[in-house]
Amino acid sequence: MKPPFHQPVDAAQVPRFAGHSTFMRLPVVSNAEGLDIALVGIPWDGGTTNRAGARHGPREVRNQSSLMRRAHHVSGIAPFSVANVADVGDLSVNPIDLLDSLKRIEAGMTAIVRTGAIPLSVGGDHLTTLPVLRAVAKERPVGLIHFDAHSDTNDTYFGDNPYTHGTPFRRAIEEGLVDPKRIVQIGIRGSVYDPGEHDWAKDQGIRIIYMEEFLRRGAEDVMEEARRIAGDGPTYISFDIDSIDPSMAPGTGTPEIGGFSTREAQQMVRLLAGVDIVGADVVEVAPPFDLAGMTALAGATIMFELLCVIAGQVAAGRTVAGAT
Amino acid sequence: MKPPFHQPVDAAQVPRFAGHSTFMRLPVVSNAEGLDIALVGIPWDGGTTNRAGARHGPREVRNQSSLMRRAHHVSGIAPFSVANVADVGDLSVNPIDLLDSLKRIEAGMTAIVRTGAIPLSVGGDHLTTLPVLRAVAKERPVGLIHFDAHSDTNDTYFGDNPYTHGTPFRRAIEEGLVDPKRIVQIGIRGSVYDPGEHDWAKDQGIRIIYMEEFLRRGAEDVMEEARRIAGDGPTYISFDIDSIDPSMAPGTGTPEIGGFSTREAQQMVRLLAGVDIVGADVVEVAPPFDLAGMTALAGATIMFELLCVIAGQVAAGRTVAGAT
Amino acid sequence: MKPPFHQPVDAAQVPRFAGHSTFMRLPVVSNAEGLDIALVGIPWDGGTTNRAGARHGPREVRNQSSLMRRAHHVSGIAPFSVANVADVGDLSVNPIDLLDSLKRIEAGMTAIVRTGAIPLSVGGDHLTTLPVLRAVAKERPVGLIHFDAHSDTNDTYFGDNPYTHGTPFRRAIEEGLVDPKRIVQIGIRGSVYDPGEHDWAKDQGIRIIYMEEFLRRGAEDVMEEARRIAGDGPTYISFDIDSIDPSMAPGTGTPEIGGFSTREAQQMVRLLAGVDIVGADVVEVAPPFDLAGMTALAGATIMFELLCVIAGQVAAGRTVAGAT
Amino acid sequence: MKPPFHQPVDAAQVPRFAGHSTFMRLPVVSNAEGLDIALVGIPWDGGTTNRAGARHGPREVRNQSSLMRRAHHVSGIAPFSVANVADVGDLSVNPIDLLDSLKRIEAGMTAIVRTGAIPLSVGGDHLTTLPVLRAVAKERPVGLIHFDAHSDTNDTYFGDNPYTHGTPFRRAIEEGLVDPKRIVQIGIRGSVYDPGEHDWAKDQGIRIIYMEEFLRRGAEDVMEEARRIAGDGPTYISFDIDSIDPSMAPGTGTPEIGGFSTREAQQMVRLLAGVDIVGADVVEVAPPFDLAGMTALAGATIMFELLCVIAGQVAAGRTVAGAT
Amino acid sequence: MKPPFHQPVDAAQVPRFAGHSTFMRLPVVSNAEGLDIALVGIPWDGGTTNRAGARHGPREVRNQSSLMRRAHHVSGIAPFSVANVADVGDLSVNPIDLLDSLKRIEAGMTAIVRTGAIPLSVGGDHLTTLPVLRAVAKERPVGLIHFDAHSDTNDTYFGDNPYTHGTPFRRAIEEGLVDPKRIVQIGIRGSVYDPGEHDWAKDQGIRIIYMEEFLRRGAEDVMEEARRIAGDGPTYISFDIDSIDPSMAPGTGTPEIGGFSTREAQQMVRLLAGVDIVGADVVEVAPPFDLAGMTALAGATIMFELLCVIAGQVAAGRTVAGAT
Amino acid sequence: MKPPFHQPVDAAQVPRFAGHSTFMRLPVVSNAEGLDIALVGIPWDGGTTNRAGARHGPREVRNQSSLMRRAHHVSGIAPFSVANVADVGDLSVNPIDLLDSLKRIEAGMTAIVRTGAIPLSVGGDHLTTLPVLRAVAKERPVGLIHFDAHSDTNDTYFGDNPYTHGTPFRRAIEEGLVDPKRIVQIGIRGSVYDPGEHDWAKDQGIRIIYMEEFLRRGAEDVMEEARRIAGDGPTYISFDIDSIDPSMAPGTGTPEIGGFSTREAQQMVRLLAGVDIVGADVVEVAPPFDLAGMTALAGATIMFELLCVIAGQVAAGRTVAGAT
Repeated sequence: MKPPFHQPVDAAQVPRFAGHSTFMRLPVVSNAEGLDIALVGIPWDGGTTNRAGARHGPREVRNQSSLMRRAHHVSGIAPFSVANVADVGDLSVNPIDLLDSLKRIEAGMTAIVRTGAIPLSVGGDHLTTLPVLRAVAKERPVGLIHFDAHSDTNDTYFGDNPYTHGTPFRRAIEEGLVDPKRIVQIGIRGSVYDPGEHDWAKDQGIRIIYMEEFLRRGAEDVMEEARRIAGDGPTYISFDIDSIDPSMAPGTGTPEIGGFSTREAQQMVRLLAGVDIVGADVVEVAPPFDLAGMTALAGATIMFELLCVIAGQVAAGRTVAGAT
Repeated sequence: MKPPFHQPVDAAQVPRFAGHSTFMRLPVVSNAEGLDIALVGIPWDGGTTNRAGARHGPREVRNQSSLMRRAHHVSGIAPFSVANVADVGDLSVNPIDLLDSLKRIEAGMTAIVRTGAIPLSVGGDHLTTLPVLRAVAKERPVGLIHFDAHSDTNDTYFGDNPYTHGTPFRRAIEEGLVDPKRIVQIGIRGSVYDPGEHDWAKDQGIRIIYMEEFLRRGAEDVMEEARRIAGDGPTYISFDIDSIDPSMAPGTGTPEIGGFSTREAQQMVRLLAGVDIVGADVVEVAPPFDLAGMTALAGATIMFELLCVIAGQVAAGRTVAGAT
Repeated sequence: MKPPFHQPVDAAQVPRFAGHSTFMRLPVVSNAEGLDIALVGIPWDGGTTNRAGARHGPREVRNQSSLMRRAHHVSGIAPFSVANVADVGDLSVNPIDLLDSLKRIEAGMTAIVRTGAIPLSVGGDHLTTLPVLRAVAKERPVGLIHFDAHSDTNDTYFGDNPYTHGTPFRRAIEEGLVDPKRIVQIGIRGSVYDPGEHDWAKDQGIRIIYMEEFLRRGAEDVMEEARRIAGDGPTYISFDIDSIDPSMAPGTGTPEIGGFSTREAQQMVRLLAGVDIVGADVVEVAPPFDLAGMTALAGATIMFELLCVIAGQVAAGRTVAGAT
Repeated sequence: MKPPFHQPVDAAQVPRFAGHSTFMRLPVVSNAEGLDIALVGIPWDGGTTNRAGARHGPREVRNQSSLMRRAHHVSGIAPFSVANVADVGDLSVNPIDLLDSLKRIEAGMTAIVRTGAIPLSVGGDHLTTLPVLRAVAKERPVGLIHFDAHSDTNDTYFGDNPYTHGTPFRRAIEEGLVDPKRIVQIGIRGSVYDPGEHDWAKDQGIRIIYMEEFLRRGAEDVMEEARRIAGDGPTYISFDIDSIDPSMAPGTGTPEIGGFSTREAQQMVRLLAGVDIVGADVVEVAPPFDLAGMTALAGATIMFELLCVIAGQVAAGRTVAGAT
Repeated sequence: MKPPFHQPVDAAQVPRFAGHSTFMRLPVVSNAEGLDIALVGIPWDGGTTNRAGARHGPREVRNQSSLMRRAHHVSGIAPFSVANVADVGDLSVNPIDLLDSLKRIEAGMTAIVRTGAIPLSVGGDHLTTLPVLRAVAKERPVGLIHFDAHSDTNDTYFGDNPYTHGTPFRRAIEEGLVDPKRIVQIGIRGSVYDPGEHDWAKDQGIRIIYMEEFLRRGAEDVMEEARRIAGDGPTYISFDIDSIDPSMAPGTGTPEIGGFSTREAQQMVRLLAGVDIVGADVVEVAPPFDLAGMTALAGATIMFELLCVIAGQVAAGRTVAGAT
Repeated sequence: MKPPFHQPVDAAQVPRFAGHSTFMRLPVVSNAEGLDIALVGIPWDGGTTNRAGARHGPREVRNQSSLMRRAHHVSGIAPFSVANVADVGDLSVNPIDLLDSLKRIEAGMTAIVRTGAIPLSVGGDHLTTLPVLRAVAKERPVGLIHFDAHSDTNDTYFGDNPYTHGTPFRRAIEEGLVDPKRIVQIGIRGSVYDPGEHDWAKDQGIRIIYMEEFLRRGAEDVMEEARRIAGDGPTYISFDIDSIDPSMAPGTGTPEIGGFSTREAQQMVRLLAGVDIVGADVVEVAPPFDLAGMTALAGATIMFELLCVIAGQVAAGRTVAGAT
């Protein structure tokens, strides 16, 4: 029997351009109670040091997510049939106060996590991942599979400012939110401030797979290693849209040419199946720099790919539970 | 005591870029029961003979309406304090069937009108006004104050097709939905198919105020005449965004240079106060041809101006009723 | 001796930005008599359920085709030297009447086919391929090599509407216009309405090569199979521009990330040599969603690639005939 | 009896987005023989010192002119009913040789003028007006009514280069092509190289009506003076699109804020009725800098306005001639 | 004798598209010593509550200012001949720390003011005017002529945050930087949070001239009053680009339709002559939302208009001094 | 000890959007004396036969180069630590005189070359490479590694014009500036004027590696051959941005689909290490056709990649010299 899960609007009865814009055309719910997966926006970019705009990301990703349908054509997973999913809205943020925003995001995400729902969020700049990790990893450090052009493990900015979208993962390690031995960063590329810029990260045990290594090895091999690094423990997935090439994702704050194709990105996300995902995000979609919604569409599709993987995990857990 | 009306999201607590996108950031309600004014989208452009795109109008007008605040700076009217207003969603339409869509729109609008709420809709192309009038004017013909670059009183197209966005008002007259003696069209301009193109309309008694006459007389004088033509009877307001100049409203299907400035349009809408408005629309906002949301912003602001006028009318009625 | 074929304007005497815009800068002729290959536009998108705009495709593809030169740099084929080619204009369509348009397109295309010219058309949405097939396959079913992100074999829409741009190939099979055993669809990808969405197509015998299979096998292997499936019989080629990645072809109604690169698309079209092509099209170029003419340029170049293949086929036939 | 003049395509049978793109959807003819008015493109911008792009002007003005209909809504003139008008194509130009282009343009325009047709051309940058005047004013100097933000009477550039788009009217005076006493320039504005920059022009007898004077006096008063200055003699009309405000005509090489509204421009062109027009142009439409075709639409509409005035003049002459 | 002032690059020798981009093509100097007028950028938008982007304003205003020439065509003032003007670069800012930025801007501006140069700055959002006033009005309160769509005298945001781009002038009054009796705000319009939103400002003595009053009275009358309000004392000019209509200045964070035309804005700035200007700014140019550089061009031209007025004031002072 | 080389602005103290726009945020110097590598703009496109705009290339490449950091993440080379590099500004050009511009460019480049600095320039159209070679190869012919979609070895245009952006390398061979046996062209593709179009080039000994051959062989193999062809002698590197796919570099005059990915381009440039580079350029970036700065970013990054290779070469020479 089909469970009474939330269902998206039926595109054969309500055209995709009609109706209110929500993630995947799902119902909006006021909180995450009863959900398996909570889709949530974090519209904040106060950690951005150059081109802001990711604050507008959730709205445009919602718009473009109207193009998503009900099932994955490769895995066959129909997420809305096997998991209860809904749009829980945007977390509270403060556009002019960085520290207040970090607190608000952590509080909002903690409320979701406490219901048992797995959060799948759309940023916002990459600094938003820090308060999300504070909520998700409150109990124990988590592993991290991180797709990005940048390592985001810088130390400070303008003297001693510890919080920018270039520093979240150094802070997360310092705060014990992530286990550096279980971190893998994939797609890192672009000019650096210093030849030794990534030494600290590597010293912590982070595995950096540069774009050049990815090109030599391919997605399957790289993701096998990534799954091995993350291991069996709880793992967070962070997908910075700037890991994708700027021709396919121009709407972002720090573009670097030579990025992943969307095909490669899709393939890698699909190969996350089997990881114990406790949360995931898509960040740095910055609509003011986007072209024809292209980046928001890429973001919405990666979000759908992540959703299908997490729904598969939910379904697997449910089946086992049901079998007991 | 402040009545328990629906209120928009507070922009000092939830930034304008955050949250779901609804008309004026108001709550979404499932039907119009209890509302004084129902904000509604009609995402359909199947009557468009050249550049389609107005089907995407409601979504983008909703997005830009996030910039509207709570009170009118000239009239002082605070619409959400004096009237119960909400977003009732989009009417059902069929993107590939013209006649089916006309029926669906009429049915959807009839359901709203029956609750007693005054509909304020966003199109869609101008043909959508025909089924709206079928709902609004079911009982008796209404007057019409019509802002447009085009008279939209053509007869047929491609032989004998009676329904396009160039024909709604001829059909409405033929069907007895509008009283031609109580119709005024303001802003008409641009090249015509035939020097006698407007003869039929004039023969019916429609008063056409061409742009050139408007320029000579000004908004106050023209609107005094418009109010006189509409008289005391129930009147519908139809605002085609292409009445505004293409530099201020490029996102429309049939642009004509030499249009109204937005200042003139705002002034005219404000001068509708006193008319007995039974419904109103803003049509022909076509986002695929828009620039930076400029047309959708103009559409959203005109919608807000109309809302304030209608709310003033509601408040006036309410006061009287309360006084009894 | 160089045959007295129609020749494009000489770009060393008339710059590419000068002169009237026609397909490949060829002369316009009033009908297809005497032509080997007829270039034709089908400016209609009334079967589009979400983002319309392909009605504007032929005009922009003509504009961008001004960048094409006289010979293919790989095959060496100089199409205008070996075949008589011209721009026969656009077929008659009716923007507000779906069924009337299907009749007009079929009639227009039948007039071309009767002259013996091979039609190479530019849509228009994908529903236009149905009336084209009704003209091309009047005598016998044809094979089909179909490049697309979507199978376009859905059944109905909004209850019982049989004709949308998602249904042409189901209708074509039902009408006996194509032999399902001789159909191959290449590049299919993206989320689906149902995990079993393609079951009907597969049951008919259609061979679907998903993007993922293409990535594993490569263009040469896939096209060898495609040629084998089409066999020796008359075959139609349908190229939906959304088979190409949205970063390279953003101007289309239903974009799906993870698509073909233009290099792959060009390679596949070149590997059509040897197929008995009786007609071909490039569809779903939607300029209102395009960026800098990029999609129209891709469409024009794919059209040129198809033209060279068909011209090679014409030349081969001509040579044989000449040898007799 | 309606004369057998060339007629535009009927938009009620062929949608505006269909068919080849020509000026006003008129037939293309190979030369001007038999025409009253020849519509012609001059796709060349080699005199541009900053932002080139007007070479692409004729193509985009043709595209946007598809929105023009058959009659003028104010004057009632139906140009295609009272004059024989057609699109004679683009003049030959050489993109990389300034002097060769001036010769080619003069030759091409001379061929048109010799047939007796009145040329109405679309540039191209403003230097193209010089060779046009060499053709039109071969026999005697003409008057000039010139709408522009700039006087275009500079002397030389980069030392001693006499030909740029800032110098045509100084050259035309020196060559005796225009009578400086019969020149009026309207709309001049913007910062200047030198406070005395216009002294030479004024010394020749040119009447410069700056934007500020226009604002004080209005279009009627200014145009009455303009007609008086031009007098009864043969007069050329040159309309630089940058006379219009950049918000309404952004696609031009040298934008200056504070320009004419399109309404004012239309009004002024209409007030040219009565002038003995021997040729006219619309120049400096530069599509690479345009937005959504807005400038090309303004250019096409001004062209239509000019066409109606000239057609009225043709009709008046024809009537008289017929009466004889 | 021409004084040895800094001169812009000569456009007849170095095309406008060549060379490094500086304000008005002037030399860059490392500090304001010896300058009469210092052109300076303040690239910061951390006070923006909705659409950020004004941090990119100075760079694009510099780019577009390459179109400015050497003299004003109405006043005849040649600013670089009568005053020593240069580009002193951008003030130091901190993108992620609001309070630190306010300090840095105040310090940078103080260094300029101490040299005796009059600062003419380009923002940045409107909060940047607060630290500028702290520098300019250190000694005594100044008058303020303020062009804007918004009064920017709100109190707090998100509870108790005192600093946003909606609050600078309330803070400036509270800090005694401006004399509220000598403040005039021109062009205020748009919906408000509360019908009494401007009561505080009016209670302080600020004169608000709404757009509607401006339309009735015209620029000359309004500016006569503005000059009277500012009086003979030192006065600061603040020009928010959103005072101009969004069709002419779309690139801004808080657009309101119904704004000034650029002609009106230019006229008003010219009528500032005679005011004792101690500093001026153009703020809220937000390039990520701009179209074709239109807003930056408007900003650069308003900056040039302000420069000419201030240079005239400098020249007047210099003449007197020289006469002694 | 860190040598006293010119250093870019520190992005941790001055945000990337702040400050004047120079190549790589380096200081501007008035001439190349003392530099190892001179970064220089050549803003001229007078050789362009279709879509001009590359004259605006240097300005936008400077803007986007603000995103470059200090070291290469693969080679580890920190160019500003091992070589003295600065922005020497733009060469003098004449927008309306082709021959004068060729002389000016040659003169400007000769002045740079004489200081011993290696020029790394940004065009400008590809004809600018001819006068650069006249300066660089004054003493002896050089080798050439040339990335492009087009061979640019055409002969004449419009009869007998020898100089366009399609002819520079034929002229360079005729003038003895390059040794045709040491020329390799990589990435050539797209339709040709004639099947034998490249015969002349091949007859001279030029090695053309078409895109199709590149796809079969890969970057490493192709670049090994390229280095072998260039040999040990002095070699010039010319990178036409249209070698990259139009989806990644749309802002160019002659786009050809099926181009290099930026990843491939980066890989090839890195494999230039070991070649004796005497000069290099990036040409044909045409901002008026660009999207969101994407092409300028690609151009700036390729420039950085070239800079790192040349800096490595400088460092190697310096080390050796220092060791002596």
